[in-house]
Amino acid sequence: MYKITFQKDNGEIVEGFGTEDETILQIAQKSNVAIDAPCSGNAACGKCKVKLIEGDLESPKTRHIADEEYEQGWRLACVSKAKSDVTVGVPDIASAYKSRMKLADLSSEDEIRIFNEAKEGALEAGYTFENNMDVLEVEMDVPTLDDTMPDNERLMRKIKELTGVEFVRLPYSVIRKLALVLRGSDFHVKCVIQKTSTSVFVYDVLPAKADVVIGGLAIDIGTTSVSAVLINMQTAEILGKASSGNGQIRYGADVINRIIESMKPGGKERLQDAVIKETINPLIEEMCKGAHFPKKRIYRMSIASNTTMNHLLVGVDADPVRMEPYIPTFFKTNSIYASDLGIDVHPDAHIIFAPNIGSYVGGDITAGTFTSMIWNRPEMSIFIDLGTNGEIVFGNSDFLMSCACSAGPAFEGGDISCGMRATDGAIEAVKIDKETMEPELTIIGDPGTKPVGLCGSGLIDMIAELFVCGIISPKGKFIREGKRIRHDKYGMGSYVIAFQEDAGSIKDIEITEVDIDNFIRAKGAIFSGIRTMLNSLDLPVEIIDDVYVAGGIGSGINMRNAVNIGMLPDIPMEKFHYIGNSSLTGAYMMLASREIEKKTYELGQSMTYMELSTINTYMDEFVACCFLPHTDSYLFPTVELR
Amino acid sequence: MYKITFQKDNGEIVEGFGTEDETILQIAQKSNVAIDAPCSGNAACGKCKVKLIEGDLESPKTRHIADEEYEQGWRLACVSKAKSDVTVGVPDIASAYKSRMKLADLSSEDEIRIFNEAKEGALEAGYTFENNMDVLEVEMDVPTLDDTMPDNERLMRKIKELTGVEFVRLPYSVIRKLALVLRGSDFHVKCVIQKTSTSVFVYDVLPAKADVVIGGLAIDIGTTSVSAVLINMQTAEILGKASSGNGQIRYGADVINRIIESMKPGGKERLQDAVIKETINPLIEEMCKGAHFPKKRIYRMSIASNTTMNHLLVGVDADPVRMEPYIPTFFKTNSIYASDLGIDVHPDAHIIFAPNIGSYVGGDITAGTFTSMIWNRPEMSIFIDLGTNGEIVFGNSDFLMSCACSAGPAFEGGDISCGMRATDGAIEAVKIDKETMEPELTIIGDPGTKPVGLCGSGLIDMIAELFVCGIISPKGKFIREGKRIRHDKYGMGSYVIAFQEDAGSIKDIEITEVDIDNFIRAKGAIFSGIRTMLNSLDLPVEIIDDVYVAGGIGSGINMRNAVNIGMLPDIPMEKFHYIGNSSLTGAYMMLASREIEKKTYELGQSMTYMELSTINTYMDEFVACCFLPHTDSYLFPTVELR
Repeated sequence: MYKITFQKDNGEIVEGFGTEDETILQIAQKSNVAIDAPCSGNAACGKCKVKLIEGDLESPKTRHIADEEYEQGWRLACVSKAKSDVTVGVPDIASAYKSRMKLADLSSEDEIRIFNEAKEGALEAGYTFENNMDVLEVEMDVPTLDDTMPDNERLMRKIKELTGVEFVRLPYSVIRKLALVLRGSDFHVKCVIQKTSTSVFVYDVLPAKADVVIGGLAIDIGTTSVSAVLINMQTAEILGKASSGNGQIRYGADVINRIIESMKPGGKERLQDAVIKETINPLIEEMCKGAHFPKKRIYRMSIASNTTMNHLLVGVDADPVRMEPYIPTFFKTNSIYASDLGIDVHPDAHIIFAPNIGSYVGGDITAGTFTSMIWNRPEMSIFIDLGTNGEIVFGNSDFLMSCACSAGPAFEGGDISCGMRATDGAIEAVKIDKETMEPELTIIGDPGTKPVGLCGSGLIDMIAELFVCGIISPKGKFIREGKRIRHDKYGMGSYVIAFQEDAGSIKDIEITEVDIDNFIRAKGAIFSGIRTMLNSLDLPVEIIDDVYVAGGIGSGINMRNAVNIGMLPDIPMEKFHYIGNSSLTGAYMMLASREIEKKTYELGQSMTYMELSTINTYMDEFVACCFLPHTDSYLFPTVELR
Repeated sequence: MYKITFQKDNGEIVEGFGTEDETILQIAQKSNVAIDAPCSGNAACGKCKVKLIEGDLESPKTRHIADEEYEQGWRLACVSKAKSDVTVGVPDIASAYKSRMKLADLSSEDEIRIFNEAKEGALEAGYTFENNMDVLEVEMDVPTLDDTMPDNERLMRKIKELTGVEFVRLPYSVIRKLALVLRGSDFHVKCVIQKTSTSVFVYDVLPAKADVVIGGLAIDIGTTSVSAVLINMQTAEILGKASSGNGQIRYGADVINRIIESMKPGGKERLQDAVIKETINPLIEEMCKGAHFPKKRIYRMSIASNTTMNHLLVGVDADPVRMEPYIPTFFKTNSIYASDLGIDVHPDAHIIFAPNIGSYVGGDITAGTFTSMIWNRPEMSIFIDLGTNGEIVFGNSDFLMSCACSAGPAFEGGDISCGMRATDGAIEAVKIDKETMEPELTIIGDPGTKPVGLCGSGLIDMIAELFVCGIISPKGKFIREGKRIRHDKYGMGSYVIAFQEDAGSIKDIEITEVDIDNFIRAKGAIFSGIRTMLNSLDLPVEIIDDVYVAGGIGSGINMRNAVNIGMLPDIPMEKFHYIGNSSLTGAYMMLASREIEKKTYELGQSMTYMELSTINTYMDEFVACCFLPHTDSYLFPTVELR
């Protein structure tokens, strides 16, 4: 057993213990030291670089460590094993991908604008924001020796009288507190109820003098990020908003790696704990604290997420999702409650799920499709969600068709050595001076925040700028020289985005040809998906009336740059709309509105799914797209070098 | 902090630690050494006697310790505090009241006879033993690339087809295991379902080849003892039977002391843990092990218990039960599930409760009333449950009337210095030779088991025999001399039931005049209850056609002796019937039969409750009954001294 001392960039020191058979990554994980391992510790991604400061580490050299770096002490934690007590430095970038929680400042109009716009759109389309939750004031007769009806019957009788509904149910949580609350309030209470035509379910009983707001929680569980809003169920007002990395990230960046991890002994429980105990519950805690809202007054939840994420959340076997014939346990389920999963809200809170369409198109897409409103217009539109993988929905009020592109996690910073989530320190926009090749960076966070890495929108900008400035070739190879351009001994080029002294890191921030190549594949997967879908319907790109782009890739996306790199079709700029995290917005709307909840289920059932891999021409399309902007430049007539 | 060494009769040694402010009883409790304290440690019952072997103990002398005993080292643990490290001996009798679990041997016809007789009676009365639980075999199409319906819809669709019921619900526990079970069984399964005309609830999904028995669990939670049977829900066959002391006993022998304890901080949780984690769950564990039955296949439970016991079980505030105007949280509730209470069976197992009638007449009495069948006959009958307290129901097929007598815990061995539960070592029957005054004892347990104390039936016999042999007076005072008769320096007489050398104890087993007095009050409470009830209806004792006596007071009750002491009315012996633990039998029947469940609710609603304390004549009746057999000997014409 050796002692491993982890020194973080911020000065924090953590001590862990492990045997010589455990990797430094494994020891870090069990010692609660965040080190990213999006490839699940297979030495494939190079994200877990740590710096050996003292001690003896058995650690092979990999392609991710340059000679010079190796000499400086850089090692991949996932292949390093201690042979003595060891001290290692853990740079910020090693934990930037799995990132901290961020609480939104709701006084900023920007944070809730997108929800209000979506709500207005739904209202215009004729949807009401009504749900069956309500607060009912109930005043009972105080019992006497001549009126000895027990508490539960006394309350139920009065609720029947007030609602006209025969069947009233008091769950255990209410039974348990009933005597105290009734006697503490002189038998004058407020009940949080859910009322249908045949039954009343009583979620809670509180003294009549209490100020009762019915809380609702909408969560978007992305493969990389988790976002949530706390709402007032009766007004649909947003009371809190927060996001954080998905704690499952340490078990792999993509859904396949997560599923594989979940199939190991105890894996389902580990993955479930990572997203619930380590991610969702702390998010709820902080968000409720920020909003001064008691978390046990959240009585209803909605969840939008891809099929794998909702299966791992629920703790069911996800292997059939990835194995032919790709059968999930559920598309839709209405039998899960907060207490089943240990989510720290009211134990009886019902969890509604945006419905999955298939193994690779999940509830995040049905929720997002509702948000995009493309189903409500006669014109043909495209909805694209750029998350981990990219999904595309095409259609109008008559039909909807969806597909999933194997874009990988690049849009959320995965598979990219300098990639990270769109959180503090992320470069979300880039401009490069053509002459000097000096970059101008926009960084998420308070003024003065130093750059740590590139998030999705920053990556699109970076590659577009390198391309239009002639710094990289259409194949993504460096073709100019300068102080920011480097080549290692194998000839692999890179561009220094920020030198160490300017970066919030203990090393330079660089983008390499391997990163650029990974990103080109990702953007190629999107465009070839769009093309294949339109081709299958014999429709030209010009038929597209509007493109709605969603995804937590930054505060926005530079559509011009997205066209310049050949990710989105070269149509007039005004046809593009960035709609933010449409999955969260959709989850919010289905939570607040029963009509929208039902419509979302309908969308899920009516949408057809196209499996791209079964289309003969898809591979050719994809190969043609792995080029900047495309091998067929006629498809991108407006793209020009600067 | 001192070390307290507890030496038990069986040679076991346990070490505990405590401060000089803690009593030996408190230190024993936290060290898991069972020492009875039915009076809650108030020096009132004298049951917690321990023997000082070594060390310095500050311990006042009390009326429960004779001078000679004090010199021998006997002390009450509840008033003793250590002034040094101490070693104390803990005799068996000190933990006999809170007693071990006992698993019934079902190969003995006697153990299940009473259930079979009750079942036959109910069948004769026209009740069927049908419930809505069933095993449904379901064979689904195996999914293919052309048939990609998710698992839950696939199963629900087929169940709809097979049952013709539209609404099928799969709870989380089923969702969670579904993928694995379907794939492990080639989509050919057995479902444990509950089917009504409008819905099917799927409790479980198991491979078709599995041998599926639907388990049910009926529990009688007495203040002193807890008994349970495990049954096959489809055949009503009894698969296991067990009983043990109620772990709450250390918080008081009677319901009032328990309620008071439960109102202290953390009290509700402590009392709930004592009955669930320490009593019911171990009982289930052992019973299922004995029956080779997987406890997670218990899908339904029924509970019969007094109002305080079911309120403490559920963890609700029980104070209103004992305080005017005596309002319980519930008479009946159908919204509690095993997982709510942490009972270790299938988490979705529904718990049905035999309904309470009031604060002092609970579900044990409604269940017992069903068992007695007095509601099904035109003749007037009395049903008496001799538990901790005694409850009486009087009536016939036209009306039922109930009352609760403040008999205290004497029938279960409480308030009696040599009293204990009806378990191994308990003297359950006694005969005394009039001449020699030598007793002949019948002891529960394997042949050769030594006597430890007296259980309820043994107490009745003992006092009747002492009385008819002229050893005690009608007032319960010793009036003969002999080697078994002692008087202490205050003149209090006692009778040695077994000398130490013949007893399973480190001291003589004695019954004192205080014990006799306590018991006379208990029996007086019963008979005065019967008289008061009949008087209020202007009915003479002769109207009684049958008397059904229930209670876990031994393997039976000597009715002649019960009449001899004036506890039961002096009517012909053939009118008396001992029906065992009628609460457990009733819980068993309402579990197995939906019709009986409904009938039990009806009985609860139709039974009127008479509060004895509001009847003017009751106190006079009671005082007249505190005599052997009664101050009015004309009421007991057949009672004669031997």
